[in-house]
Amino acid sequence: MSKVKEFNEYRQRMNDRILQQDNLVLKRLFNLDTNTYAEGALDTRTKEMLGLVASMVLRCDDCVKYHLEKCREQGVSTEQVFEVFAVANIIGGTIVIPHLRRAVEYWDELGR
Amino acid sequence: MSKVKEFNEYRQRMNDRILQQDNLVLKRLFNLDTNTYAEGALDTRTKEMLGLVASMVLRCDDCVKYHLEKCREQGVSTEQVFEVFAVANIIGGTIVIPHLRRAVEYWDELGR
Amino acid sequence: MSKVKEFNEYRQRMNDRILQQDNLVLKRLFNLDTNTYAEGALDTRTKEMLGLVASMVLRCDDCVKYHLEKCREQGVSTEQVFEVFAVANIIGGTIVIPHLRRAVEYWDELGR
Amino acid sequence: MSKVKEFNEYRQRMNDRILQQDNLVLKRLFNLDTNTYAEGALDTRTKEMLGLVASMVLRCDDCVKYHLEKCREQGVSTEQVFEVFAVANIIGGTIVIPHLRRAVEYWDELGR
Amino acid sequence: MSKVKEFNEYRQRMNDRILQQDNLVLKRLFNLDTNTYAEGALDTRTKEMLGLVASMVLRCDDCVKYHLEKCREQGVSTEQVFEVFAVANIIGGTIVIPHLRRAVEYWDELGR
Amino acid sequence: MSKVKEFNEYRQRMNDRILQQDNLVLKRLFNLDTNTYAEGALDTRTKEMLGLVASMVLRCDDCVKYHLEKCREQGVSTEQVFEVFAVANIIGGTIVIPHLRRAVEYWDELGR
Repeated sequence: MSKVKEFNEYRQRMNDRILQQDNLVLKRLFNLDTNTYAEGALDTRTKEMLGLVASMVLRCDDCVKYHLEKCREQGVSTEQVFEVFAVANIIGGTIVIPHLRRAVEYWDELGR
Repeated sequence: MSKVKEFNEYRQRMNDRILQQDNLVLKRLFNLDTNTYAEGALDTRTKEMLGLVASMVLRCDDCVKYHLEKCREQGVSTEQVFEVFAVANIIGGTIVIPHLRRAVEYWDELGR
Repeated sequence: MSKVKEFNEYRQRMNDRILQQDNLVLKRLFNLDTNTYAEGALDTRTKEMLGLVASMVLRCDDCVKYHLEKCREQGVSTEQVFEVFAVANIIGGTIVIPHLRRAVEYWDELGR
Repeated sequence: MSKVKEFNEYRQRMNDRILQQDNLVLKRLFNLDTNTYAEGALDTRTKEMLGLVASMVLRCDDCVKYHLEKCREQGVSTEQVFEVFAVANIIGGTIVIPHLRRAVEYWDELGR
Repeated sequence: MSKVKEFNEYRQRMNDRILQQDNLVLKRLFNLDTNTYAEGALDTRTKEMLGLVASMVLRCDDCVKYHLEKCREQGVSTEQVFEVFAVANIIGGTIVIPHLRRAVEYWDELGR
Repeated sequence: MSKVKEFNEYRQRMNDRILQQDNLVLKRLFNLDTNTYAEGALDTRTKEMLGLVASMVLRCDDCVKYHLEKCREQGVSTEQVFEVFAVANIIGGTIVIPHLRRAVEYWDELGR
């Protein structure tokens, strides 16, 4: 599972570097980002799927990877995650397909 | 509820015009669009919220309006729809706020 | 044909205002924009269709209108323009459909 | 100066409606948005020009209007604002030109 | 010609994986994608150039690579492909230039 | 400082290849790009920060790298560059964060 590990280590290392700089706006944004997916009127599982589809139509591979991990933690099934992918690809068009390929590859690695 | 009616009438009229042209690719895409939100491993209610958040981060006001209507039909509450908005605005940034304003205005009109 | 006229008058008036400001970079960009569609290894007709599809996937209604006028001047048929639309909607996804509606409406107005 | 007034009144009314809903994430994002442009290592004037150019390349007319007002309050001159426009149009391409037209129109209205 | 081969092998392998999942919407979208570029009122050569320019302004390197291969198969010359690039870079701005660099590199590799 | 060197060498090599092709539109666009950041009503330092924030919200890593080098040459401090990053991340949302990570990494490499 080395691709997953590599992604998470880089992510953690750079997040630490950014927060250490003590820019108030960025620190608060990072905080707010975490709060966004907390249980509320919608549960975290639904919110993580919302995060995934939004990341995919905006074609952000790293954001997709992050939400794929969260979706797996929340018990989203492979069949369900492909339905999220389907919504993203219909709304965002074939331009999303290269990101779909990388997302499926990462999803499969997470399941190993 | 005239803004809602006006939007739907224009939408219907132009969709009819487009389909009447008999371009096979566009016809199939319109069909596929409908299938995307059918019950499956995920229910239609969840898929409509996925469609809403994706439309919002892509900043497409007409798409947002369409999915807001569908979300209301599916029984999504105002508190829940605001949590979808929150995900969209955190992921998409303050650039999404003008679309949030118009979305809230339309949501309120749908509820009248 | 008043929508067409209104669009062109606003466009002309504001272009004049912008050029009158004498910002060298903007003036050269406006110039360069015109040169881009000149006959070359590809003919103007092909280039205008390229301009149309690019404007549509980038979801710029005003740019779409402009290139629709040029396509009509270049003798692109309705069937052909719908094939350009089809490419744009498959590549750009259903998010492009609201722009397709407005494009078809404008195309029909140009033909009146 | 009615277009300016109309824009600001709609903006204020809908912001009030949104904040009244009491969604914590959206409230904090609105707050954070204000903090972003406060004096710091860079002055507010520079930050407002940064906000303007970012809004323009992202092609958000309402965001452009907002930052144009702030730039005027901060004493940015017409010649300077056109240099911000030039950066935006070179980086973002001719797709930005329709937004440039509306920006120039609004800038001129602010100066009346 | 190893970069070309590597790209195509990854593309094929992941497409197979995606289609094997049997998500109806994604399968139909993949099908529709192929149909879009078939001979019609416009020939395939023109449609592939449309696909190329759209992929480039949307800044999708993998999509650009795919259409570059198709353009070469369709007999588009280097001078012509640079005119497609010119349209993309004027419409999409200097933000497209890094994608232009990678496109030219891939185009040259295809010609070896 | 090998990442910086590698980036600049690839950039230079491909720019030379592109210009050698003698496409008039692309040559003029490259020229115009340089002129955009020249001293004027705004100084180069401000314009490079404008270029940086625009590149970041448009999520173009190579463009970000280029403007980071220019900002460093112009004496922009680390604290100031983080304020530019903050504007970009608030306007563009959390989707910008992966680009922020890579930008900070490159900024630190430039300072070594």
